[in-house]
Amino acid sequence: MSDRIRVGIVGYGNLGRGAEQAIALTQDLRLAAVFTRRDPAGVACVDPGVPVIALDEAAQWRDRIDVMLLCGGSRQDLPEQGPRMASMFTTVDSFDTHARIPGYFAAMDQAARAAGTLAMISIGWDPGLFSVNRLLAESILPRGSTHTFWGKGLSQGHSDALRRVPGVRAGVQYTIPSAEAMRRVRAGERPELSTREKHTRECHVVLAEGADPEAVRQAIVTMPDYFADYDTTVHFITAEALARDHAAMPHGGFVIRSGETGDGTGQLLEFSLRLDSNPAFTASVLVAYARAAHRMRRQGAVGACTAFDVAPALLSPRDPAQLRRDLL
Amino acid sequence: MSDRIRVGIVGYGNLGRGAEQAIALTQDLRLAAVFTRRDPAGVACVDPGVPVIALDEAAQWRDRIDVMLLCGGSRQDLPEQGPRMASMFTTVDSFDTHARIPGYFAAMDQAARAAGTLAMISIGWDPGLFSVNRLLAESILPRGSTHTFWGKGLSQGHSDALRRVPGVRAGVQYTIPSAEAMRRVRAGERPELSTREKHTRECHVVLAEGADPEAVRQAIVTMPDYFADYDTTVHFITAEALARDHAAMPHGGFVIRSGETGDGTGQLLEFSLRLDSNPAFTASVLVAYARAAHRMRRQGAVGACTAFDVAPALLSPRDPAQLRRDLL
Repeated sequence: MSDRIRVGIVGYGNLGRGAEQAIALTQDLRLAAVFTRRDPAGVACVDPGVPVIALDEAAQWRDRIDVMLLCGGSRQDLPEQGPRMASMFTTVDSFDTHARIPGYFAAMDQAARAAGTLAMISIGWDPGLFSVNRLLAESILPRGSTHTFWGKGLSQGHSDALRRVPGVRAGVQYTIPSAEAMRRVRAGERPELSTREKHTRECHVVLAEGADPEAVRQAIVTMPDYFADYDTTVHFITAEALARDHAAMPHGGFVIRSGETGDGTGQLLEFSLRLDSNPAFTASVLVAYARAAHRMRRQGAVGACTAFDVAPALLSPRDPAQLRRDLL
Repeated sequence: MSDRIRVGIVGYGNLGRGAEQAIALTQDLRLAAVFTRRDPAGVACVDPGVPVIALDEAAQWRDRIDVMLLCGGSRQDLPEQGPRMASMFTTVDSFDTHARIPGYFAAMDQAARAAGTLAMISIGWDPGLFSVNRLLAESILPRGSTHTFWGKGLSQGHSDALRRVPGVRAGVQYTIPSAEAMRRVRAGERPELSTREKHTRECHVVLAEGADPEAVRQAIVTMPDYFADYDTTVHFITAEALARDHAAMPHGGFVIRSGETGDGTGQLLEFSLRLDSNPAFTASVLVAYARAAHRMRRQGAVGACTAFDVAPALLSPRDPAQLRRDLL
């Protein structure tokens, strides 16, 4: 027990809880403490024996944590929390605001280098496993094109946008990849696909009392950035149906590269995920990369890095000779 | 041109020719020379400007080659050729006799450490990309089971076995994954599948003059190790049909891990390839890993390693900031 990798979790929402459960499935990691901005007395971990600590007291845990998993959100939490934690701990996070990755990387790199820690950012499945597959596929088949499809899955960002529409009491949004677009990509056509051609959006909405359904539908389907560029369908349902049929958080998707080798023959690579719980899976990815982050730090690595910098063997608890014998 | 990675190819069969064509698609590698055991005068590269050198003279090229791609076979060529080449060059090979990988790794490790070179072994798609996906999936979902299916594809080993049957003049063998077995795995059943349940084998045979079809069929389907454990069908065809319909070397397959996260929800990862030319694709994998081998050697790595030890970023010609911006 004593030589296990000591992991801390910052933020105890769906992702943090998933990380606790993923750590429990390992033999070589242990959860040292959960850190929260809330009143620690109000946070109950799945394992009641886990210390819950006020985030402000994290500095006192510098010698008792090997890797800190940052389980907060990319919009509000990580931009401020990330560099602060990286100045004290080796960290792994799931920063996923694509356009802001270069800036976040730079901030984390600076904090981590100054502190002599390692900051592994943007870990999860996209960014994360999907990114690794895009990189692998492109490196092996430089002549070709890569397509990423998401879904069928519940999109947190689009569900949030939906709930901000006047007249909407509650609701969820599913992203659905176009079967026809995927068929064309798999057939090797390498099509140029518009946003509308790649995915459709499906909303399940509980109306506020007295709201006009048609006005709500119009407000949703014409919302710029989120829905206007897609074929969006809106279903009105009861609060009971929402609770009964839409409480899970499934997701998934596909990375497909269609290309050709130097002899002109067609080659197709495809990676896909079908996840019954998006946060539980993302947390499991974070935990495997926490193992790698600890090992890389012990080998002397400092600064920011991503999944692109992690050799696969570092993710496994098994020793290299065993991996070669059983999995190669 | 002068700061390109200088690559040598040992062995100029389908794989070596594919490597030449894959190198031609890159901007940062160049083919320095092809080495052959045949009379060099009888070997014509796709690019007639490439020097073809007798393998015995390879030692004279030590200062002119950064990475040597070993494109020989695992049974006859690599066990002897591998360690000899690793004692002079940083090497990448596609050694694929699974049971002998530990021994081959040890021999290559010893030769490479003594010489201060890097020997990257068992690169390709299986072993190689499939191995990496088995490792990734197992590390992220420790609770679950991984299934590998091959095909539909032409198996060189089984085609060779087929041709050794008395009465067979020529022929090819296709390995076909069972659609029903794959359906069960994808449904999350985690079935225990027998060899017979996972794949079927399909043979296309040209009979020797006067051969008895039924006797040939019996000899094939009862052949131990190769066919007896499978449902095997044998089709008799003409030499013309063989040349016309079965000259390509397609292959592919699927790595599927079905598992669950700590919350008990089901999760499915799948990686698949559909290759119109197996050797051309395998050669493209070798070439991307040659780039990584060169970089790792320059960073000080020596000894034997596998795809498990290669960070994805090392495979790409693009710089890390660009990769984070475009592919993360």
